[in-house]
Amino acid sequence: MPNWSSFDIEMMSRAIMLAERGRYTTRPNPCVGCVIVADGQIIGEGFHQRAGQGHAEVNALQMAFDNGFSTEGATAYVTLEPCSHYGRTPPCALGLINAKVARVVVAVTDANPEVSGRGINMLRDADIQVDVGLLTEQAYALNLGFMKRMKTGLPWVTVKIAASLDGKTALSNGVSKWITGEAARADVQKYRASHCALITGVETILVDDPSLNVRYEALGELTTHHTKDEIFQPLRVVLDSRARLTAAQQLFAIKSPILLVSGRHYADSVKATFPEHVSFLVLECDSSGRIPLLALLTYLGENANAVLVEAGATLAGAFVAQNLADDIVLYQAPKLLGSHGRNMLQLPDYNAMEQIPALHLIDERNVGQDKRYILRYNQPY
Amino acid sequence: MPNWSSFDIEMMSRAIMLAERGRYTTRPNPCVGCVIVADGQIIGEGFHQRAGQGHAEVNALQMAFDNGFSTEGATAYVTLEPCSHYGRTPPCALGLINAKVARVVVAVTDANPEVSGRGINMLRDADIQVDVGLLTEQAYALNLGFMKRMKTGLPWVTVKIAASLDGKTALSNGVSKWITGEAARADVQKYRASHCALITGVETILVDDPSLNVRYEALGELTTHHTKDEIFQPLRVVLDSRARLTAAQQLFAIKSPILLVSGRHYADSVKATFPEHVSFLVLECDSSGRIPLLALLTYLGENANAVLVEAGATLAGAFVAQNLADDIVLYQAPKLLGSHGRNMLQLPDYNAMEQIPALHLIDERNVGQDKRYILRYNQPY
Repeated sequence: MPNWSSFDIEMMSRAIMLAERGRYTTRPNPCVGCVIVADGQIIGEGFHQRAGQGHAEVNALQMAFDNGFSTEGATAYVTLEPCSHYGRTPPCALGLINAKVARVVVAVTDANPEVSGRGINMLRDADIQVDVGLLTEQAYALNLGFMKRMKTGLPWVTVKIAASLDGKTALSNGVSKWITGEAARADVQKYRASHCALITGVETILVDDPSLNVRYEALGELTTHHTKDEIFQPLRVVLDSRARLTAAQQLFAIKSPILLVSGRHYADSVKATFPEHVSFLVLECDSSGRIPLLALLTYLGENANAVLVEAGATLAGAFVAQNLADDIVLYQAPKLLGSHGRNMLQLPDYNAMEQIPALHLIDERNVGQDKRYILRYNQPY
Repeated sequence: MPNWSSFDIEMMSRAIMLAERGRYTTRPNPCVGCVIVADGQIIGEGFHQRAGQGHAEVNALQMAFDNGFSTEGATAYVTLEPCSHYGRTPPCALGLINAKVARVVVAVTDANPEVSGRGINMLRDADIQVDVGLLTEQAYALNLGFMKRMKTGLPWVTVKIAASLDGKTALSNGVSKWITGEAARADVQKYRASHCALITGVETILVDDPSLNVRYEALGELTTHHTKDEIFQPLRVVLDSRARLTAAQQLFAIKSPILLVSGRHYADSVKATFPEHVSFLVLECDSSGRIPLLALLTYLGENANAVLVEAGATLAGAFVAQNLADDIVLYQAPKLLGSHGRNMLQLPDYNAMEQIPALHLIDERNVGQDKRYILRYNQPY
C-alpha cells in the first residue's frame, strides 16, 4: 500500500463527499466521486448523479476543460475503479488516458470479480501511475448494496425495526401508533428513499394498511438538495404466499410500483382489480408454506442494490435466521411495554449463547427522543 | 427564593460533593455535607460518614475550631435541614446557634413532615438568617431512599434488569451467562453496595443459585475510598411464598443477613438447617398466592432506605404493575436473542398506549460495551 500523503487523504475525502451527493439518485448505479488536481490545486471535480448521465470522472474532466485547465500530468482521485467497458458512455479509464493524467488514485476496485482490475490495468498499460486502496472502507460504505449485488447477485438487506426498550413493536392487539417519535419516523422516510425496494408481509398490509411510500414532505433537509421528481419511490414488495390480497388496501392507491410475490397465482377476477402499477411474481413456497427468501432476493438482485425489510417478527426473523439479513436498523423508544407486547424478531429457540448470530454495533445515535442502532450481521468485505 | 450568588452555588455544590462521600456508609442515615465560610474563605467542612458518628455540621464546626477559626458571623451551607432533636448527638441546629453563625443556607428541608422546618425555626428563633432551597434537586437526589422512607415509610425501589436489545434476559432454558459485559456486572456490584436490601424471588435462587452479595474486589475505584469493612452487605430478601427453599443454595454460604419471606412457616426440620444469619418473615399471601409487596416494603421501610429488586419478569413486573417501582436500572447489551428468550418485565395486557405506565429517562450512559438506562416511574417530590 502506498504511503499516502495528507493531501492524498484530503482529496479522496473530498471525492467521497462528492460521491455521497448521489446517494438518493444514482441507483442502480453506484455513487462515485472524482477530484482532479494539478499543481496542488483542484481543477475539476464531479460525481455521478443519475444512471444514463455522466460518470464522475467524465464530469470532473469536463469541469477542468470548461474552466480552461490542462489535465496533462494531473492526478485524478476516484472513489471507485474507473470503468473499462463501453456502456451508455465510453470507458472512464479511456477518458482519463485521453486527458493525459499522470496518476490515478483509486479507493476501491470494481466489485464485479469479472471486471475488477481491468480499468486499473488499462490505465497502467497507458503508463499512468495507479495507486489503489486509499480510504477503502469509507468508499466501500458508499455502495454496500451495489458492491454486494456485483459480487453475489443479491441486494444488501436491511431489516428495519421500531421497538420499545423491552423489545416490543406493538401491544398484543397490534396497536403500535406510536412507539417511536416523529424524528425516528422521519428518519425511516430517508431510509426508504435510499433503498431500491421495501419488503413486507401480507399481515402487515392487512393489519396496519400502510402506504409504504416515501413522503417527500417528510424528508426534511433532503428536500433542499433534491426535487420531488429526483426522489425514487422504492419498489414495494409484498409477500403474500396464499395470494390473499385484494385491491382494497391503501398501498394500491399510491401510484408507484408494487410487486406482489405469492406462492400461487391470484385468481384472474382479483388480478383484474389491481391497478397497472402492480406486477406479479410467483415463487414456489417452501415446505412450511413460506416464500423462499433467497429466491426472492436473487430475483430482486437483478436490479436492486439495497432492500429494506419492514415487517413483523416472523418475516424479519426469517431473514436473520436464514443469514440473509446484513443490517438491522433498530429505532428504540425509551418505553417499557411489558411482556404481552409483540416481539421484534422471531428467531429459533437457542440453547446456548454461542448459537445466537453474532452482530456488530456499527452506529448508534439519538434520533429525537429515540435511539437508532445499526447492527450488522455480515461484514461487507 | 433568595437570589443566590455564584459563591453560594459554589459552596453548596461543595457541600453536596462532600455529602456524596457518605453514599456507601451512612445508611440508614442520610448523606449530608456542610461547608462553613467566613470572609469568603472555607474555614471548616465535613460530611456525615456513619450512623452514630458526627453529623456533617458538627464535623465542619469541629474542623473550624481545630484550626483556630472563629465561627462567629460565619455562613454554614448544609445539604439537609439541620436536625432539631436530641438523638445520639445533640441537635445540629443548636450546634450552629452555639457557634454563633450568622447565616445558614439549606438545600433541602427535612423529609419527615413531623419535624420538617423545626430545625430552620430553631435557627431563625436565634436570629440566624436561614435561606432555603439552593440546589434542592441535586441535594434531594443524594437521599432519594431516605427522603421517601421519611415521607411514606416505604423504601425507594429500584428494579435492576440486564437484557438484550430485544428485551430478553435469558434464553428460554434460562441461560443468561453472560448477556451484559464485565463492566456492567461490576456496576451492579456498586448498585448493590449502595442499597440497604436486595429483593429476589425463589425461582431466581433455585435456577441461578446466585450469592447476591457485594464482592469487594469487584468495586473498582470504590476500594480506594472504602475499606472492606466499611462496605455494607445489603440484606438479602428472598420471596418464597410456599416456603420451598432449603439451606442447599449458595446464598446461605455467605455470612451476611438473609430474610426469607414466605406465606407459610417453614417446616421446623428445614428451619433448623438454615444458618444463623437467616431470619424469617411470614406474610399472608394475596389471592393469587403471592407475597403482598406493599406489606413487604412497609416492613423493610422500617430500616431500609433503598431496595434493589433483582428478579425475573414476574416479580420485577409486579413491582411496576402495582406502582411500587420508582426506578428501573436497565443494562442493555448490543445483542439480539430472539423471541424465544425470556421477557424482562411481565406487565398487564394493555389495550392502548395510554395504559402503559409512563416513565422518564433520568440517565443514560455507556458501561463498557453495554448501555445503562435509569428510567423513573415516580418523581421523588
